[in-house]
Amino acid sequence: MADNQKLRTPPKIYQYSIVSALMDGQTLHGIQLKDLVKQGDFGLGTFQLADGEMILVDGTAYHMRHDGSISVVEPTTYLPYAMVTFCRPTVTTSVSGMLKPNFQKHIEDITPTAKNYFLAIRLDGVFKKVQVRAVKGQDVPGAKVMETITKTQKIFNLENVEGTMIGFRSPACYQGITVAGYHLHFISKDRKAGGHCLDYEVQEGSAGITIIRSLDTELPDTDDFCKADLTLDHEGIVKAEGN
Amino acid sequence: MADNQKLRTPPKIYQYSIVSALMDGQTLHGIQLKDLVKQGDFGLGTFQLADGEMILVDGTAYHMRHDGSISVVEPTTYLPYAMVTFCRPTVTTSVSGMLKPNFQKHIEDITPTAKNYFLAIRLDGVFKKVQVRAVKGQDVPGAKVMETITKTQKIFNLENVEGTMIGFRSPACYQGITVAGYHLHFISKDRKAGGHCLDYEVQEGSAGITIIRSLDTELPDTDDFCKADLTLDHEGIVKAEGN
Repeated sequence: MADNQKLRTPPKIYQYSIVSALMDGQTLHGIQLKDLVKQGDFGLGTFQLADGEMILVDGTAYHMRHDGSISVVEPTTYLPYAMVTFCRPTVTTSVSGMLKPNFQKHIEDITPTAKNYFLAIRLDGVFKKVQVRAVKGQDVPGAKVMETITKTQKIFNLENVEGTMIGFRSPACYQGITVAGYHLHFISKDRKAGGHCLDYEVQEGSAGITIIRSLDTELPDTDDFCKADLTLDHEGIVKAEGN
Repeated sequence: MADNQKLRTPPKIYQYSIVSALMDGQTLHGIQLKDLVKQGDFGLGTFQLADGEMILVDGTAYHMRHDGSISVVEPTTYLPYAMVTFCRPTVTTSVSGMLKPNFQKHIEDITPTAKNYFLAIRLDGVFKKVQVRAVKGQDVPGAKVMETITKTQKIFNLENVEGTMIGFRSPACYQGITVAGYHLHFISKDRKAGGHCLDYEVQEGSAGITIIRSLDTELPDTDDFCKADLTLDHEGIVKAEGN
């Protein structure tokens, strides 16, 4: 899509697979990064076998691993779950001295008519602390993701770090399709630390919010997906995401 | 979209609003038919105030009312809920002497790897019976749709009728976003009778099925939608749809 066309079109989110499939351990299929970036330059996801966390910042995707290493993702890499958009913030706000619940409340306060819509959220700034995790991944393909997270996640406590937090807030009624509520990943400005956000405290920063009314979901074209148990596990998702 | 482009692109479903919003009585917004048909030539929906049932057959939309009247929908008419696609069946089957549960089982049997996907279903044939309903609609804007259906629906028992049944089977995990399971509307070949299918018995016909892996949902841009209670009412949807 040409850049001017992207700007004219109302924003939409593209999502490959659904969270309930990921929870069921469906991580062997995927969309290649080179195809994913046609759908957005901003977002998050995971990798085959749930090996690490993906953040897509300004069109560049990073692989954040449980050993703390970070690398730029190759265009041919497959992502079994990803949620992306072309982020063009319509609401911007300065943030100062806010814990996670205060930041979330602030977002709700400045988007009072958006509770049933999606929000794409980007926060650039200095963080007093950011607690992130990266999952090592499944030992066995198909292992349930909750077990995998519990057994293999590595938690990193970053302090006084400059960086970018990127993700989405989805309406409660989309739980299982997406993650209801907030789902944010973080990467430091020097691209040396990051992961899935569990907790944070913003010292100083600026946030850009895009209110989005469209979600496109594409389901994986694999035999495994056809057999997946997609029953909603609300408690499981809340625990898995650290919400 | 040019016709040859439509045929090359993998099929996707476009849906305006979500079923939970409809259940909450959100029927004053809508997408105009002229915009809806850019997204598909096949599907179903409802009208403002839930006044009647919409079926979209080969690009022509019909308004099927509780008084039994049927008319072609004007391009500027607003539809507060609609689900459409460009139907290009990939599986076809002959059907003979089948009650509703047998037809549904037959569909599952011939699409064994599609339980977690969407199916677009079209059945042309002669029906021994078709029980359809059309809702009269809300007395008061915003009235809950279950109450509206119970109080105002008119049921028609058609016998030995030739016609077309059109709709979707959605995976269980999309309940509330769409209608989980089967959601079919019917119109007679002479365009003089039809509605939302509650029950049927096919005498002889042919069915075309399209397996679909993509759903695009667009949420209404209205103040009412922002305030809607979108909590999933599984039992309510099952009752409302007559499944």
